[in-house]
Amino acid sequence: MKVAWAGSQHAVEVADRMARLVASDPVFRKDTRTMLSRKELFKDTLKKAAHAWKRIVELRLTEEEANLLRLYVDQPGYVDLHWGMFVPAIKGQGTEEQQKKWLPMAYKFQIIGCYAQTELGHGSNVQGLETTATFDPSTDEFVMHSPTLASCKWWPGGLGKASTSLRLSCSSHNGRKRLWHTWFHCAVAKLDDHSPLPGVTLGDIGGKFGSGAYNSMDNGVLRFDHVRIPRDQMLMRLSQVTREGKYVHSDVPKQLLYGTMVYVRQTIVADASKALSRAVCIAVRYSAIRKQFGSQAGGPETQVINYKTQQRRLFPLLASAYAYRFVGQWLKWLYTDVTQKLEAKDYSTLPEASCLYCWAQVCDNICHTDAIEECRKLCGGHGYLNSSGLPELFAVYVPACTYEGAMRFAVAGCKVFDEDRLSGGHWEPTCRHRSSHGQHTALDAMQKRCKYSRRLVNPAAVKEVFEARALRMAVNCAQNISKAPSQEEGFSELSPDLLEAAVAHVQLIIVTKFIEKIEEDIPGPGVKEQLQKLCSIYALHLLHKHLGDSLSTGCVTARQGALANEQLGKLYAQVRPNAVALVDAFDYTDHYLGSVLGRYDGDVYPALYEEAWKDPLNETVVPDGYQEHLRPLLKQQLKLSRL
Amino acid sequence: MKVAWAGSQHAVEVADRMARLVASDPVFRKDTRTMLSRKELFKDTLKKAAHAWKRIVELRLTEEEANLLRLYVDQPGYVDLHWGMFVPAIKGQGTEEQQKKWLPMAYKFQIIGCYAQTELGHGSNVQGLETTATFDPSTDEFVMHSPTLASCKWWPGGLGKASTSLRLSCSSHNGRKRLWHTWFHCAVAKLDDHSPLPGVTLGDIGGKFGSGAYNSMDNGVLRFDHVRIPRDQMLMRLSQVTREGKYVHSDVPKQLLYGTMVYVRQTIVADASKALSRAVCIAVRYSAIRKQFGSQAGGPETQVINYKTQQRRLFPLLASAYAYRFVGQWLKWLYTDVTQKLEAKDYSTLPEASCLYCWAQVCDNICHTDAIEECRKLCGGHGYLNSSGLPELFAVYVPACTYEGAMRFAVAGCKVFDEDRLSGGHWEPTCRHRSSHGQHTALDAMQKRCKYSRRLVNPAAVKEVFEARALRMAVNCAQNISKAPSQEEGFSELSPDLLEAAVAHVQLIIVTKFIEKIEEDIPGPGVKEQLQKLCSIYALHLLHKHLGDSLSTGCVTARQGALANEQLGKLYAQVRPNAVALVDAFDYTDHYLGSVLGRYDGDVYPALYEEAWKDPLNETVVPDGYQEHLRPLLKQQLKLSRL
Repeated sequence: MKVAWAGSQHAVEVADRMARLVASDPVFRKDTRTMLSRKELFKDTLKKAAHAWKRIVELRLTEEEANLLRLYVDQPGYVDLHWGMFVPAIKGQGTEEQQKKWLPMAYKFQIIGCYAQTELGHGSNVQGLETTATFDPSTDEFVMHSPTLASCKWWPGGLGKASTSLRLSCSSHNGRKRLWHTWFHCAVAKLDDHSPLPGVTLGDIGGKFGSGAYNSMDNGVLRFDHVRIPRDQMLMRLSQVTREGKYVHSDVPKQLLYGTMVYVRQTIVADASKALSRAVCIAVRYSAIRKQFGSQAGGPETQVINYKTQQRRLFPLLASAYAYRFVGQWLKWLYTDVTQKLEAKDYSTLPEASCLYCWAQVCDNICHTDAIEECRKLCGGHGYLNSSGLPELFAVYVPACTYEGAMRFAVAGCKVFDEDRLSGGHWEPTCRHRSSHGQHTALDAMQKRCKYSRRLVNPAAVKEVFEARALRMAVNCAQNISKAPSQEEGFSELSPDLLEAAVAHVQLIIVTKFIEKIEEDIPGPGVKEQLQKLCSIYALHLLHKHLGDSLSTGCVTARQGALANEQLGKLYAQVRPNAVALVDAFDYTDHYLGSVLGRYDGDVYPALYEEAWKDPLNETVVPDGYQEHLRPLLKQQLKLSRL
Repeated sequence: MKVAWAGSQHAVEVADRMARLVASDPVFRKDTRTMLSRKELFKDTLKKAAHAWKRIVELRLTEEEANLLRLYVDQPGYVDLHWGMFVPAIKGQGTEEQQKKWLPMAYKFQIIGCYAQTELGHGSNVQGLETTATFDPSTDEFVMHSPTLASCKWWPGGLGKASTSLRLSCSSHNGRKRLWHTWFHCAVAKLDDHSPLPGVTLGDIGGKFGSGAYNSMDNGVLRFDHVRIPRDQMLMRLSQVTREGKYVHSDVPKQLLYGTMVYVRQTIVADASKALSRAVCIAVRYSAIRKQFGSQAGGPETQVINYKTQQRRLFPLLASAYAYRFVGQWLKWLYTDVTQKLEAKDYSTLPEASCLYCWAQVCDNICHTDAIEECRKLCGGHGYLNSSGLPELFAVYVPACTYEGAMRFAVAGCKVFDEDRLSGGHWEPTCRHRSSHGQHTALDAMQKRCKYSRRLVNPAAVKEVFEARALRMAVNCAQNISKAPSQEEGFSELSPDLLEAAVAHVQLIIVTKFIEKIEEDIPGPGVKEQLQKLCSIYALHLLHKHLGDSLSTGCVTARQGALANEQLGKLYAQVRPNAVALVDAFDYTDHYLGSVLGRYDGDVYPALYEEAWKDPLNETVVPDGYQEHLRPLLKQQLKLSRL
């Protein structure tokens, strides 16, 4: 199962090696991280980043190994943005000359870069950005300026304290009205003493959700006061401003930009899958340790994992962890595929990448933080303690839902169904590239009935239900939109329904990818069988949760819905004996999990007890403040006539 | 609307006066709370508690006023447990003599008490508690002992550092096998220097979810090593241990205990409603300020509250805030009613109180933290900043779902339907006391059809759908249980379905109470009309969300479901113009909200900007750690052949 999870024997081996390398290094300890002050925490992040780099260089690690090492260090910091956003942006948007100039410096950390787009008053809407770059032909420079408070750059990770450079999004013009959306490579801190360059105000935007968590990152605020930079700092691969101040497009197709976007999305989905699987691992292991109530008064208490209610909440999350893992593997494949095709100037897969762009967002927003929080609840009271690792996991993962602005969600949801497809009645499942069904017309699908009259145990039957549901919801939307006075109005009015249809579509893709996975040749005794069960749990619990969709569109009958629910109960009982093995297959070290509840050895209570005494509040038995604020209260002599 | 929300003109006035009293007092400032270290935060809590008490005494506040003052101070601390659990427990479980002895001391804060039940290895299952009290007839004492690590008391608020006394739950015996569950009043700290008594180990259990938040509370760990206390410290109202070591029940009926329980649950629901309304207030106000995207490229951006997708997520939460407020008011009435009847030895309302006990739990667990987190997401990225107030609101409210152990949830869910009712086919809606329908038999309801063929705009029609849904789900469960080999097995197997049926039942009660509220005489122009809209939104969005239940039990048709959804869209548009006024009606001060996003004056961006600079990380421009960890990195000269 470890191989199925990791993707290959090689992947198991290298991940395991890097995880142990980090876990055994005292510099990477994180057990008291939530007790550090903001300044101590940030300093600790700088220290870990420098040490990680030192190890990467000393051990001459490959890119794959270096990425894994950083993953297992598990502390958000400027390096994430440097490697994950800055370098890819220079690669994607810089000319060959610019790449040659800046990439070697970035690769050696002679500059540290981040990615500055969001502004205090503006999220993902690049058209709304207020930061201006005014071209001054007299000096061949751009003048960077933040004309309003709302135009301050706000949120970019690594910007506040660590970065020396940015990849900047702003509106440029040549002194007249016309504005273009442009990108720059822009230095912000002096390389000799790290102080901000003249005209640049830099700072951290303040504390964020949770202790430890994302507070290790210096999300920053940046204000420009007429800062001049040479024209050739503009990233000119896709468009240029000439010496005369004229804006021209290059012949490089705009679609190439999608490459970077797909890459970033792919990473987000992969991170989401990681965070979810860590939470599930903790919840499953602890549920097998924790006992509560007995079957009869006075008898021994029962492991909570044996309660049906616990199983119904926990096992779908376990199945989801696998589902997201496999869809993540597919996305990685898709990224490589799209990139290769783009490089060969084949843009045929772009609509698919565009869909992907939206649905990664949809599933992130909907599924993951809720799922992590659900895992925390399933650990009862102790899940609320920082030592459980779950609060930090939740808080650190939350921004992934926020990166691109939650409100944008609305718009993204609608784009999954573009107008042509809907009004034309055509249906191209995103998953078609391996689908046996090919294209359907809307009419086909509306007439189709689920032919499996009783049980939905057959993957083909399940997939058909999900296909029918997604399609019928989309067609319903299209029909309702066509009744609106204008298409724009219809889209706006129906956007919540479109969103629900988009969710149905996303779920279809995930179910499909899971089914495809279990159709593969999977080595190891019983592995395939376990995955089949998880796949059924994933699909049937969604069917149960969204039964209204399927019933109202006539995809299943009430009787089938009831049978599916019954079937779920049986599947939970079958998965129960292997539940712990199924999370052990993730192969996470105790260091990476960072949870006393999720310890591999199950020795939870002594660990909880020991962790408690580390709290600064326990440095003294009688608390600081007793003399000033408790003793006078306890010693007072009061007359309290009204109380 | 303020009066409808608060319950009366008097309630508006006194709440407003107390909120302003707190907001204007510099000691109660909380704007930098999330930046304090654990020790500073705890000291700040002690200071605020002492100052609040000083003001209460100086101003000779009434109990109502004092409670409101503590509410608006809005910082969890030992006083919450002292007044909310310790004093009620002494009242409910102590004999008259014991009350006379301890209550005056508690009222004057000469002792500080908490409520110690939960153990490291045991949650709410009092039968499983391991702490022992062994009666020693030779000295007329009990010997308190923690025989295992798992038997340490763990979690009680105020126990770690502030309390001098506890109300303790443990297992007592007289040296032989027989164990009884008993309660004690037990001193743990010396009154002269606050150090733990001999044989008592006391400490704080460590950091919890969030910055600030519940970390102001000293949740504690307590270990006894053969501590001797006099026999008369046992709380003996309901049962006694005699001088000879014999355990006897008093003639006070056990049911009286329910009084305290109902009181505590009632408080939890009220707190939940408060937390939700604060989050909704922030999200609604900020959604009206925040702009994102335009209707056309280049046009001005649109307030996000105008997006249909935002409305569909936000307005049901607004409606829920009102729904929970009104059900809270009803619960308060019910508490008074049950208490009065219990005192008159009328136990007829106890089953209702018992139901209440369960469903307060169900709705708390399901609705509230998710709703607060949803509000945070609806604020986009800025909701992740501590200065938004939302992370702390979420983290501080989470334990309310945890107080009684999330895993107990399972069992609680099942109890809503006791076996007699289900197998007897009888149905007594908890809300029957004002219902015109009286009792139904299961058969009645199964045969009943929703008579409103088209729109569900009529409250009576909506209520009927919710009644039919709850009943049919319960009856389905009962029928399936009856097929199991034994009833116990059936209950265990079907517990997830019972839980869903319990949720349906809870929702029926809330919808019913909302409908009853809007049937009352409500003063103020347009107030009733607005509440009617919110009531419809609350009910119809639940119908939409759980459409599967209603469709599969035949309570509504797919056509009705679609019409209800359409109706919802219209209701959102109607509520939109009054949305901000509807949250202003909560009458929360900026101090109490504690959110730069939810400011009354809407001046969000300057406030966010100003808050950022308060972060300790901004004390220096170049960060602490630059010389050690950044400069060497930036100045290195490396050969990186493999990267």
